Amino acid sequence: MANALKRFIPMFDRVLIERAEAMTKTRGGIVIPEKAQQKVLKGMVVAVGPGSRTEKGDLVPLAVKVGDQVLLPEYGGTKVEIEEKEYHLFRESDLLAKIEQ
Amino acid sequence: MANALKRFIPMFDRVLIERAEAMTKTRGGIVIPEKAQQKVLKGMVVAVGPGSRTEKGDLVPLAVKVGDQVLLPEYGGTKVEIEEKEYHLFRESDLLAKIEQ
Amino acid sequence: MANALKRFIPMFDRVLIERAEAMTKTRGGIVIPEKAQQKVLKGMVVAVGPGSRTEKGDLVPLAVKVGDQVLLPEYGGTKVEIEEKEYHLFRESDLLAKIEQ
Amino acid sequence: MANALKRFIPMFDRVLIERAEAMTKTRGGIVIPEKAQQKVLKGMVVAVGPGSRTEKGDLVPLAVKVGDQVLLPEYGGTKVEIEEKEYHLFRESDLLAKIEQ
Amino acid sequence: MANALKRFIPMFDRVLIERAEAMTKTRGGIVIPEKAQQKVLKGMVVAVGPGSRTEKGDLVPLAVKVGDQVLLPEYGGTKVEIEEKEYHLFRESDLLAKIEQ
Amino acid sequence: MANALKRFIPMFDRVLIERAEAMTKTRGGIVIPEKAQQKVLKGMVVAVGPGSRTEKGDLVPLAVKVGDQVLLPEYGGTKVEIEEKEYHLFRESDLLAKIEQ
Amino acid sequence: MANALKRFIPMFDRVLIERAEAMTKTRGGIVIPEKAQQKVLKGMVVAVGPGSRTEKGDLVPLAVKVGDQVLLPEYGGTKVEIEEKEYHLFRESDLLAKIEQ
Repeated sequence: MANALKRFIPMFDRVLIERAEAMTKTRGGIVIPEKAQQKVLKGMVVAVGPGSRTEKGDLVPLAVKVGDQVLLPEYGGTKVEIEEKEYHLFRESDLLAKIEQ
Repeated sequence: MANALKRFIPMFDRVLIERAEAMTKTRGGIVIPEKAQQKVLKGMVVAVGPGSRTEKGDLVPLAVKVGDQVLLPEYGGTKVEIEEKEYHLFRESDLLAKIEQ
Repeated sequence: MANALKRFIPMFDRVLIERAEAMTKTRGGIVIPEKAQQKVLKGMVVAVGPGSRTEKGDLVPLAVKVGDQVLLPEYGGTKVEIEEKEYHLFRESDLLAKIEQ
Repeated sequence: MANALKRFIPMFDRVLIERAEAMTKTRGGIVIPEKAQQKVLKGMVVAVGPGSRTEKGDLVPLAVKVGDQVLLPEYGGTKVEIEEKEYHLFRESDLLAKIEQ
Repeated sequence: MANALKRFIPMFDRVLIERAEAMTKTRGGIVIPEKAQQKVLKGMVVAVGPGSRTEKGDLVPLAVKVGDQVLLPEYGGTKVEIEEKEYHLFRESDLLAKIEQ
Repeated sequence: MANALKRFIPMFDRVLIERAEAMTKTRGGIVIPEKAQQKVLKGMVVAVGPGSRTEKGDLVPLAVKVGDQVLLPEYGGTKVEIEEKEYHLFRESDLLAKIEQ
Repeated sequence: MANALKRFIPMFDRVLIERAEAMTKTRGGIVIPEKAQQKVLKGMVVAVGPGSRTEKGDLVPLAVKVGDQVLLPEYGGTKVEIEEKEYHLFRESDLLAKIEQ
């Protein structure tokens, strides 16, 4: 994994996601115009924070880890550029589901 | 159950629902035009999260399980497509009732 | 009680209510036009949830039970049709009062 | 106290109030036109709920009891008709003061 | 203190205040027109509630007592008339400061 | 410190601040027109409340004391006049920083 | 570090950040017009508060320290001038990530 990505530590319950590539062709090979390309709601976890913090300051570890495939909400997330590559930062509680491999 | 569905793990207190089919004909066999078809508010639970999380990080198991029939609110829920089939993701607290079989 | 109604289990602190019949005639027998009929704010509890849930997941039993007569707020409640009969689903905390028989 | 009133049990921390009569004449006997009659903000407690409920489900008894004279806020309260007499339902926390006799 | 005032018991954390008289003349004796009279933000505590209530129902005594001089916020407070004299009811948490004598 | 100021006891977590004088001249001695004078965001603590109150009624002492220099937010604060001198009342949680001398 | 900066103690969970310099030239040396310069979202921690405070008044130390590189949100933060140099004050919970060196 790129060096800069390893040095990127999300705060607390934030999770860094690399969105899956958008489908640019149908299975039959027909090119999907960009406008018609559905927003990709799947992605891979590439960095996780230490966990959410309780009122007393204890850390509650996150339920997702690096490498997990997750389903993202349609809205939200903060765009982050690392070494000219685009990632998105979500809070764990915004993630909809894990997709086991 | 389809493979992809088994690999779909809702986060925390989210529940994946397959809506019942809309009634397209009256009991007497008369076709109900789509516009007049009432929104289907019943559905079956097809996947559940591990439970909602307390402030300390403990999990509180959900009160619904896979196979349960539930009554859905008229609004809310996130549409999710799995293997080209449409499902809806709800939070447990949004579900109105269980309908025992 | 109808079969389907018995199988209807409201979630947590929700309560299913059957509204009392609207008065269509005055005591003197004069027909009250529908528009002038006051909204019926009384009803009978026909199904109750297991109770509201504390942050730790414990259930707090409801203070109303099947058969109780209750006073409903003017607004709120979710319409639910069971075997073509109309009921309304309220949260316990929305109910105004119990009317002992 | 009328029978129906005795059977009226406000839920939890709600309190049923009978508003004092509005002053229709000045002390000097001059009739006050309805529009000029100040809204009566005093009333008597005629029924009380069992108390507000803590998160764990314990009841906290109310600080007012049947027969107490109370000062009402200018707004709020739900009108309730019992045997064609008008009462108002308030939450205990909305009451402004008790007026000892 | 007037009899009716003694019988006036604010609920919980409410405090009854008698506003200080507005300055109608400058120190030099010049009459200040009503419009130019600054709103009086000082007042004396004339009645206090038993205290605010914790979630469990315990009472937390108030930090002000009858006779204390207090600084009032510019807005808020409920006007209360007792024996044709004007007072204002505030919540303790709205009071800005105590002015020791 | 003026007598009236000593008798001024802010409630709970409120803090009384005397704003530093606005700079009316540049270092080079040029007069800064009032409109161009930046709002002074520094000030000195001249009175502090006993502390914020926990749900159970315990006091949590404030982290600032009389004499501390503090950085104020641009907005907020209640103007208070004591012996014709202008002060501002803030809640402790609104203060941005302490500036050690 | 400048003297004034050392005397600057953010309150509680606030963190003082020095934003990294905006890139005014592309790697190829082409000057980027100010309007096109992206808002710098990286910065270095130059001062930290003692920590956030629990309801009982205990301090929870911050997860960032002086010298840490952090990723800032696009909006928020309070501009602070210290010895004519510009800094920004954030709450710890607004910071998006740490960037290890």
